[in-house]
Amino acid sequence: MSHNSFGHLFRVTTWGESHGPALGCVIDGCPPGLPLTAEDIQADLDRRKPGTSRFVTQRREADEVRILSGVFEDDRTDGPVTTGTPISLMIENTDQRSKDYSDIRDKWRPGHADYTYDVKYGVRDYRGGGRSSARETAARVAAGAVAKKILGPDIIIQCALIQIGPHKIDRANWDWAETRNNSFFAPDAAIVPVWEAYLDEVRKAGSSTGAILEVVASGVPAGWGAPIYGKLDSDLAAALMSINAVKGVEIGAGFEAAVLTGQSNADQMRRSAHGDVMFTSNNNGGILGGISTGQDIVARFAIKPTSSILTEVESLDRNMAEVSLRTTGRHDPCVGIRAAPVGEAMMACVLADHKLRHRAQTGG
Amino acid sequence: MSHNSFGHLFRVTTWGESHGPALGCVIDGCPPGLPLTAEDIQADLDRRKPGTSRFVTQRREADEVRILSGVFEDDRTDGPVTTGTPISLMIENTDQRSKDYSDIRDKWRPGHADYTYDVKYGVRDYRGGGRSSARETAARVAAGAVAKKILGPDIIIQCALIQIGPHKIDRANWDWAETRNNSFFAPDAAIVPVWEAYLDEVRKAGSSTGAILEVVASGVPAGWGAPIYGKLDSDLAAALMSINAVKGVEIGAGFEAAVLTGQSNADQMRRSAHGDVMFTSNNNGGILGGISTGQDIVARFAIKPTSSILTEVESLDRNMAEVSLRTTGRHDPCVGIRAAPVGEAMMACVLADHKLRHRAQTGG
Amino acid sequence: MSHNSFGHLFRVTTWGESHGPALGCVIDGCPPGLPLTAEDIQADLDRRKPGTSRFVTQRREADEVRILSGVFEDDRTDGPVTTGTPISLMIENTDQRSKDYSDIRDKWRPGHADYTYDVKYGVRDYRGGGRSSARETAARVAAGAVAKKILGPDIIIQCALIQIGPHKIDRANWDWAETRNNSFFAPDAAIVPVWEAYLDEVRKAGSSTGAILEVVASGVPAGWGAPIYGKLDSDLAAALMSINAVKGVEIGAGFEAAVLTGQSNADQMRRSAHGDVMFTSNNNGGILGGISTGQDIVARFAIKPTSSILTEVESLDRNMAEVSLRTTGRHDPCVGIRAAPVGEAMMACVLADHKLRHRAQTGG
Amino acid sequence: MSHNSFGHLFRVTTWGESHGPALGCVIDGCPPGLPLTAEDIQADLDRRKPGTSRFVTQRREADEVRILSGVFEDDRTDGPVTTGTPISLMIENTDQRSKDYSDIRDKWRPGHADYTYDVKYGVRDYRGGGRSSARETAARVAAGAVAKKILGPDIIIQCALIQIGPHKIDRANWDWAETRNNSFFAPDAAIVPVWEAYLDEVRKAGSSTGAILEVVASGVPAGWGAPIYGKLDSDLAAALMSINAVKGVEIGAGFEAAVLTGQSNADQMRRSAHGDVMFTSNNNGGILGGISTGQDIVARFAIKPTSSILTEVESLDRNMAEVSLRTTGRHDPCVGIRAAPVGEAMMACVLADHKLRHRAQTGG
Repeated sequence: MSHNSFGHLFRVTTWGESHGPALGCVIDGCPPGLPLTAEDIQADLDRRKPGTSRFVTQRREADEVRILSGVFEDDRTDGPVTTGTPISLMIENTDQRSKDYSDIRDKWRPGHADYTYDVKYGVRDYRGGGRSSARETAARVAAGAVAKKILGPDIIIQCALIQIGPHKIDRANWDWAETRNNSFFAPDAAIVPVWEAYLDEVRKAGSSTGAILEVVASGVPAGWGAPIYGKLDSDLAAALMSINAVKGVEIGAGFEAAVLTGQSNADQMRRSAHGDVMFTSNNNGGILGGISTGQDIVARFAIKPTSSILTEVESLDRNMAEVSLRTTGRHDPCVGIRAAPVGEAMMACVLADHKLRHRAQTGG
Repeated sequence: MSHNSFGHLFRVTTWGESHGPALGCVIDGCPPGLPLTAEDIQADLDRRKPGTSRFVTQRREADEVRILSGVFEDDRTDGPVTTGTPISLMIENTDQRSKDYSDIRDKWRPGHADYTYDVKYGVRDYRGGGRSSARETAARVAAGAVAKKILGPDIIIQCALIQIGPHKIDRANWDWAETRNNSFFAPDAAIVPVWEAYLDEVRKAGSSTGAILEVVASGVPAGWGAPIYGKLDSDLAAALMSINAVKGVEIGAGFEAAVLTGQSNADQMRRSAHGDVMFTSNNNGGILGGISTGQDIVARFAIKPTSSILTEVESLDRNMAEVSLRTTGRHDPCVGIRAAPVGEAMMACVLADHKLRHRAQTGG
Repeated sequence: MSHNSFGHLFRVTTWGESHGPALGCVIDGCPPGLPLTAEDIQADLDRRKPGTSRFVTQRREADEVRILSGVFEDDRTDGPVTTGTPISLMIENTDQRSKDYSDIRDKWRPGHADYTYDVKYGVRDYRGGGRSSARETAARVAAGAVAKKILGPDIIIQCALIQIGPHKIDRANWDWAETRNNSFFAPDAAIVPVWEAYLDEVRKAGSSTGAILEVVASGVPAGWGAPIYGKLDSDLAAALMSINAVKGVEIGAGFEAAVLTGQSNADQMRRSAHGDVMFTSNNNGGILGGISTGQDIVARFAIKPTSSILTEVESLDRNMAEVSLRTTGRHDPCVGIRAAPVGEAMMACVLADHKLRHRAQTGG
Repeated sequence: MSHNSFGHLFRVTTWGESHGPALGCVIDGCPPGLPLTAEDIQADLDRRKPGTSRFVTQRREADEVRILSGVFEDDRTDGPVTTGTPISLMIENTDQRSKDYSDIRDKWRPGHADYTYDVKYGVRDYRGGGRSSARETAARVAAGAVAKKILGPDIIIQCALIQIGPHKIDRANWDWAETRNNSFFAPDAAIVPVWEAYLDEVRKAGSSTGAILEVVASGVPAGWGAPIYGKLDSDLAAALMSINAVKGVEIGAGFEAAVLTGQSNADQMRRSAHGDVMFTSNNNGGILGGISTGQDIVARFAIKPTSSILTEVESLDRNMAEVSLRTTGRHDPCVGIRAAPVGEAMMACVLADHKLRHRAQTGG
């Protein structure tokens, strides 16, 4: 058992605090012979990096990843490849601004893990949220880049932001290419100005807002996953719910399935022109009985508003005195904006794990 | 790694097919000295039992549990107690009606695991859904009864059905006692006739419907759970998503959190008259940073409509021929109705596991 | 984590007490499509069964195994095959002789787990040793029979008794076929009368004796196993040391390696006539760096004398009073005699697990 | 499952190659509030460090450890303490001498993992043995230092070298203090000149030799450990067998138990003057039924001769050509000499894990 690991055969253990010297992860179980360079990983990290627009934290982190083990290049290969031994990745923290932390040292910020860490551990690295900081997700994104190598080019994983506050995208406009054209990862270009206006309003009010994201994996073959507690959807739910600030996860039709009838929910099956299995709909989000159907795997997750807000809220301090609290500093008004690469990484890690698990049990 | 186990320190491994000789589970890690009889477990099983109203399957299963190990009574104790060794529980299948399974033997029922099991394993116990049958949840309920012994009487876990199809309960009417007065586990007496009428309509149409349930644990002390991949909410999400037909899980405000602002979402903290921590709201569902706050732990899960319906749907058979399919037999039109004891059991198992995990790391 | 499970991808969880209603195991991760009947398992159980000679316990147990799940026969197959779901095996206890247990209920037998279970758990099923009885190994043997199905006919696992008390076999006489001709599993026919005489003497003295066994797996391909904590030898050591009464485990040259020089210990490599790798010796017992070399995998384990003896020994009771104790009842004077099938089973389980683990990481 | 992790609740994952940029480990599950500095860990690393005498490798490594996470100091504490989050430790490799590796790049050194890694992974970091180098044990020693913090000052763990080649210490001379006075960790001062002479002889012959070590933990309370596959002795066997070059492990009387009778092996129990349990001997090595008895926990492990020797041995290269091979470079003629701190570390890690496991299940 490990509180800070996820996955079984593709197993990632993350470590590090927001303002410690570094953070990183160790990946165990990666198959040998996969080409892997720091640049491969850096590309994904750069997509998650802070400081890319006025709507995300202004903390400036290079987020430069170093590969410390598990990869080797000799003159027989065309570049570094994985060796089958543990891959250790490290990202040094470089912009831990020296500041007065006395406020959050002693006060419990509502919606943060301050109180629960103090109750549980009696001690807490309060600088920048310590271990509970969203900076930990950099290690996930790095691991996700390795997971994608295992999945290969035929499996495409993409994540889109589909709702900020009350403003949803129009699914009729959905264009994955659009997610790479705006800093919101929005698949609908038309929503961008709406969200910008809304976020400006939220910021002016010293507030924050929640969001919903959708992550989709295409090209996953039928047969991955397993009954009963190794279900693909169960593992995805755990993986996505473990992301900071996530409060809900759904697969396929999700909560909407509650209002469907058996007929409307049934993903009926036909034979394609090529003789393949073809489904007439995908309410099940590409998973039946915990096992992939070959359709797109579709998951959504809801993110609560950033708890660090400029508006005063009431709270307690470690001495149980009632206090008021405003959280200044560099914070995202909507952490959902930078969550897309993290959602992709979690999907990639879960699928890589299940690819190996499937291979173990069935040889396939 | 185990596909059929859940939990770490309170670890449950379930086994069994719907129409095999028996099903059951092995519970490992249960502390010694807890009073435990088959009757304790039977009480929970009886709440899940089929055949209790016209809206659930008419299969008649006694669901009688036997304790095969891990419990011992000698003349020094007031009755059987757990010994700290594995507790093996078995429920024999008694009503596996001998019937012609030729239909589902060769045809893949849409929305079921028929196709995915066939693709993955090449072989499948098709009788009554085999391993993917909801009968497997009987083993979960049995394990949950043991988990409650670990949690003790101060932690109360209750689950309510809060929506069937489009019909939601009125939360203003919420009364937990009501859930024990009607066969729907509804906390709002007024909804019962509405649901009855709706379900009659659904049955007449040869259809089925989805549902939403809410499970709440009261009395959980602050401090259980763990960062980052041992989060209480992450484990709950996996546990609830692993229940048959579940397509969504949310904690506290859940998907609604997406539309909240930072201020409205903040669960502000005050000092109670007794000097305790008191929250002014519970949007976080009793969990912050993956660790319990001491408030009620609140989770909801959505269940899709039963896939076995009397109306014809289109599908394929194992030879990839297109076929039409009506599923006759004994099926719940809304599997959500019997899911409340299962939701409680999963909550109990997750909490029992985390109680032991918390004790391991902090001694507390 | 599970105290009562072993293996990772071929994962076995055992349960049951010596005098409870039954004992058994759940096997998770078994690949689908392997032919498996109760008879396959029974054959191995019968080799371990008590009552086969005057040197083993006279307890009469049919040790009949039932397969409760995970195996299915339909008209498309030539007999029952595994389905990929958990295989639950149960053996009912039928000869729990009703007797007066007051002696061991309150007194701690030296060399037994009586005292340590009491200290740890505060309660103990004292009947026949409860969970710590060697009867638990029946479940291992059953699991081993399934493991052998995964390994296939090219991997041969055999275990021989090579020493009882001071009397060692003559390795020059080694003949595996002999192990099937005598009730000692001795590979040297000449040792049998020596051991018989020695055991008669031991029994007359109301005493017992230790033993050493050697287990060998042939046909294991090179490449199974893994650094650093998934080493084949490390897993074998744990597996063999977990057998009741085992106090030592060695691989290849084992403790003798301490006195070897680098030259004499080196298993030099040559190319065989067929162009294969060939080693000139096997001091490493078929494992280098935790990974199989393709040679025979060779392990030995030492078993202490049965602690239950007719001669009086001094001890304490639960009230900390000093007592004298003679253990009457049905006991093996040398538990090593029946340990060969258990050694084979543990070897089979470890190898089956590593076959799947190897396949997961390398596809091979 | 993780190939590179050990322990369950005190869980250590190591990473790194001999000639990569660094090596290290991540420790998960450490309780909060334990004082911990890099100096605490460095003290143990320095005991394992190469270059301390003419009988060990002349590689010069500072082996300076950095704590990258999991420890925090604020003005409320008297120094850094663990926070309950993962502790990441890193040791940079500084003396990776740039050299011509062409020999071991293509040739398989007998007794090394060269061939098995190549077969398994198809690629191998051959520089200095890569992942299979004994340098990996530095990470274990670092983890062991943290484990000792969990165990506290009342549990004393010591390891002694008791045999080199055919030369055994005289147990009558045993003095733990002596192990800190000579570079062999010998508990018998008289053996030191014997070993020095023998090792000089071995070196002159261009050879190497094996060794045996004994590790003892005092002060472990009765009750730690667990049946059946969580046995303390089973976990110890795995831990010690996972150390490079170890070929045998025994507990208490070990292989000698095979020749004992039931009477001579029985560790009889008496009541001490203080009313405590007292054993008259310790053939069981402080463990019964996998659970500690309160006596010293005693384990021995055998180490094979260093495989890298100056004398020519026959082998193969990657092209399956027969070659001759002499291993020059900096090598220990007897790796057992530096293994004592590693044995202690493994004992400490196993015990720390079981302390937490015991606490989880029994609260004690």
